[in-house]
Amino acid sequence: MSSLVDTQNEPDHRNLAIDRVGVKALRYPLSIKDKDGHTQNTVATLSLAVDLPKEFKGTHMSRFVEALNANQEPLEVSTIVSLPQSLLERLPSDKAHVTLRFPFFRSKAAPVTEKQSLLDYEVEFDVETNRKGETNLTLTVFVPVTTLCPCSKAISQYGAHNQRGTVTFAVQMSSPIWIEDLIELVETSASAQLYSLLKREDEKFVTEQAYENPVFVEDLVRNVATKANEHPEILSYRVEAENYESIHNHNAYAVIEG
Amino acid sequence: MSSLVDTQNEPDHRNLAIDRVGVKALRYPLSIKDKDGHTQNTVATLSLAVDLPKEFKGTHMSRFVEALNANQEPLEVSTIVSLPQSLLERLPSDKAHVTLRFPFFRSKAAPVTEKQSLLDYEVEFDVETNRKGETNLTLTVFVPVTTLCPCSKAISQYGAHNQRGTVTFAVQMSSPIWIEDLIELVETSASAQLYSLLKREDEKFVTEQAYENPVFVEDLVRNVATKANEHPEILSYRVEAENYESIHNHNAYAVIEG
Amino acid sequence: MSSLVDTQNEPDHRNLAIDRVGVKALRYPLSIKDKDGHTQNTVATLSLAVDLPKEFKGTHMSRFVEALNANQEPLEVSTIVSLPQSLLERLPSDKAHVTLRFPFFRSKAAPVTEKQSLLDYEVEFDVETNRKGETNLTLTVFVPVTTLCPCSKAISQYGAHNQRGTVTFAVQMSSPIWIEDLIELVETSASAQLYSLLKREDEKFVTEQAYENPVFVEDLVRNVATKANEHPEILSYRVEAENYESIHNHNAYAVIEG
Amino acid sequence: MSSLVDTQNEPDHRNLAIDRVGVKALRYPLSIKDKDGHTQNTVATLSLAVDLPKEFKGTHMSRFVEALNANQEPLEVSTIVSLPQSLLERLPSDKAHVTLRFPFFRSKAAPVTEKQSLLDYEVEFDVETNRKGETNLTLTVFVPVTTLCPCSKAISQYGAHNQRGTVTFAVQMSSPIWIEDLIELVETSASAQLYSLLKREDEKFVTEQAYENPVFVEDLVRNVATKANEHPEILSYRVEAENYESIHNHNAYAVIEG
Repeated sequence: MSSLVDTQNEPDHRNLAIDRVGVKALRYPLSIKDKDGHTQNTVATLSLAVDLPKEFKGTHMSRFVEALNANQEPLEVSTIVSLPQSLLERLPSDKAHVTLRFPFFRSKAAPVTEKQSLLDYEVEFDVETNRKGETNLTLTVFVPVTTLCPCSKAISQYGAHNQRGTVTFAVQMSSPIWIEDLIELVETSASAQLYSLLKREDEKFVTEQAYENPVFVEDLVRNVATKANEHPEILSYRVEAENYESIHNHNAYAVIEG
Repeated sequence: MSSLVDTQNEPDHRNLAIDRVGVKALRYPLSIKDKDGHTQNTVATLSLAVDLPKEFKGTHMSRFVEALNANQEPLEVSTIVSLPQSLLERLPSDKAHVTLRFPFFRSKAAPVTEKQSLLDYEVEFDVETNRKGETNLTLTVFVPVTTLCPCSKAISQYGAHNQRGTVTFAVQMSSPIWIEDLIELVETSASAQLYSLLKREDEKFVTEQAYENPVFVEDLVRNVATKANEHPEILSYRVEAENYESIHNHNAYAVIEG
Repeated sequence: MSSLVDTQNEPDHRNLAIDRVGVKALRYPLSIKDKDGHTQNTVATLSLAVDLPKEFKGTHMSRFVEALNANQEPLEVSTIVSLPQSLLERLPSDKAHVTLRFPFFRSKAAPVTEKQSLLDYEVEFDVETNRKGETNLTLTVFVPVTTLCPCSKAISQYGAHNQRGTVTFAVQMSSPIWIEDLIELVETSASAQLYSLLKREDEKFVTEQAYENPVFVEDLVRNVATKANEHPEILSYRVEAENYESIHNHNAYAVIEG
Repeated sequence: MSSLVDTQNEPDHRNLAIDRVGVKALRYPLSIKDKDGHTQNTVATLSLAVDLPKEFKGTHMSRFVEALNANQEPLEVSTIVSLPQSLLERLPSDKAHVTLRFPFFRSKAAPVTEKQSLLDYEVEFDVETNRKGETNLTLTVFVPVTTLCPCSKAISQYGAHNQRGTVTFAVQMSSPIWIEDLIELVETSASAQLYSLLKREDEKFVTEQAYENPVFVEDLVRNVATKANEHPEILSYRVEAENYESIHNHNAYAVIEG
């Protein structure tokens, strides 16, 4: 069947290199090691791409999937980090780029009863490697938290509006940092952290804790940024907080890049 | 060009009628009259469908769009209500079904400063008409509200977790009810209603109001159901409340059908 | 801490039972056995609910999560089927209802080169159990397929518009059916099935296969319904097909319930 | 009520300026003039933000909504362009940033029968203004198109897989360009354009047209980029194409920035 035309390999005359070409929204099983030594099994949504030199009409999309399949299923983090290199071996490109996002679980003890339950987070890896072997890795955690409004507390005789918010914290590191440590850095910056299972004693605790620790969306990103600035392994970061305001039908948000 | 084959009109031998066939996710401008006499301009997402008798291979999808276009643009509510009839005139079916969903705005005065701002809701019309001319109309409002947890308030020394929630209230009516009246029925059943613009005096008001009116998700659907049961024009209804819990990463929900 | 008020247990005077109350959008690891004996690890999104008699002010939301946690993590299918029973043991209700949806993978051989790759599907379990121990189970598969338009093929000198579509096939069974068998029943009803990895020989094959097997959205649901009607273990079903038309910005859809 | 504490105005000691703080996911009616002189009424989803100097604890979220409301409803494009300036007049910031995205309609004549129908697009404005009065405006159109695979056509005896794709084309301009002209630039770069209403003669036309004009996702971004490079008013751009492959359950994509 080698006689089939290879349209992608035909020359292109528009003289335009393509910054990034590949596949998106591909799902694949992923296993990942916990900080406490367990293996989590989850499902990742991936994109894989390379640049395309101006001489070629097209890339070979099937090779992206072959690069994935060349590894044992499920994917592991060590495989992910070398996936761009593996794309460069299969395609005539200078840079390769892999992104994957997946649900990640932590077992948490409720604050008073210490009952264990799993909380779900989203995590994203973004890896880019060039022909010289230089690699940039960004690790992003999406952390749901409670925020209680300082203004509402200060002006009201009782109560204060509070809500769920999401903090998106992306970091470049000088050496590996545990996902759990990034999550904890964020959770301790909010009014309170979330749990799947809270008995009444626990609910009393988190309600009062949030009331004692009001944060604006501005405070939340500043709290995270302060810790990121002090963290020896964090080279650069972007932190965004978004609050699903309980008194509005729109959200409040803030961003710091450092 | 009348020589083009009409594949859809060919006979089908599988002996299977189709309950519903048509188009989905079609967007179209819509204008709708307010309770206070103004015309709102918005954008609807529509589905239009008919049943297909077992004799036919296919329906004629383009006629659904022609039925829409036969009217002046934008659509109006009176047009919507007669759209199924208009489909039955173009297609050999016994029943026709039209659904459309759109953002709807109300201007609201902040509770203390009385500053006006627009709040957005989602609204859905669902109309089904048969060959005998019988029509069923369901009107659904999706209303964002504040809920404050009675348990959290009762057990905590100060504060109480609260959050945004959405109430989905669908009604069949004996005579037309204003969208605004259904929205108000829901908003007065929650701990507090939402506003786009709140100055500090207003924020103090809604914070304290929510604290004084705690509702579980169960209370919220019961409050709505009680009012629906007493409403002379509401024949039947379904009310669902979903709270985006500020202390969990999952939601609480409750449903009553009456 | 037993002195904390139990607000949910207080009596309610509105005299309104609640059809369904519980938690939604809770994520949890799930493992599931393949038809070929392997164990797949995936992540489910769950809702758990019960009815609430009119005497009670509220249900106990934390018990839903405790019922989940009472089992070994990850969840298994046998656990899911008994989860409603486990809710009834913890709560004073007559019916309990559990829904969970998760990505599911099948390894498929490309049609010519026979190269293996994983294709992802969505699968949903819906289980309801009452106090008498009666259980209703609905299994739904969401299957992506290729559809090629018979009309477009018949009227055009060359080519035919085709697109990705999704078939949602929900069944009630007299005895267990493999997820893989339901998927295959759907995939063989379309113009062609999908693969993650296709080399050129394979792409030629599926292109020509789709052209030789044109189906309207009406044909697709009829093909599935015909097979479902003949299947000895399928008691009842609902099949919906939705095509993301390549020539329109809206979708075509059809539904048969049998 | 002037005695209410102004928490946001309190000094902050973390010494961290905030890059962007404001509101998100706010909906508002918008009217916009067509190229052919008509006024379209639609609904925009907005975000409004400013930077926050390190001295302040918080911004005043209500002023964002007041800036919106200071104008006549619905919003108009001239208002949008001056909204950041209006935010700078209300808040002690150096830069203000407004984004809004909305559905936009064009009436199109079917290629043979010339029957008119409306096609929906998404459009986004992104405006940033600083204290010096410098403004950056980015206009983005999201254009749905048909793509037919050149490889599939070249290797198959008959047929070729095709699908809907979305082109995201963002431009910075030296002088205003009509939204319609950007859309047309994209639509003429694909295998065929989309229509809401096609009779059989039209369907034959677009089927054959797509077959005669196969494009890879790479061709599509290169075709757009070539025209953008030649366009006298386009200063810089980013074009991304994403194809919802009819033979895969994942998408193909390509990006050029120029």
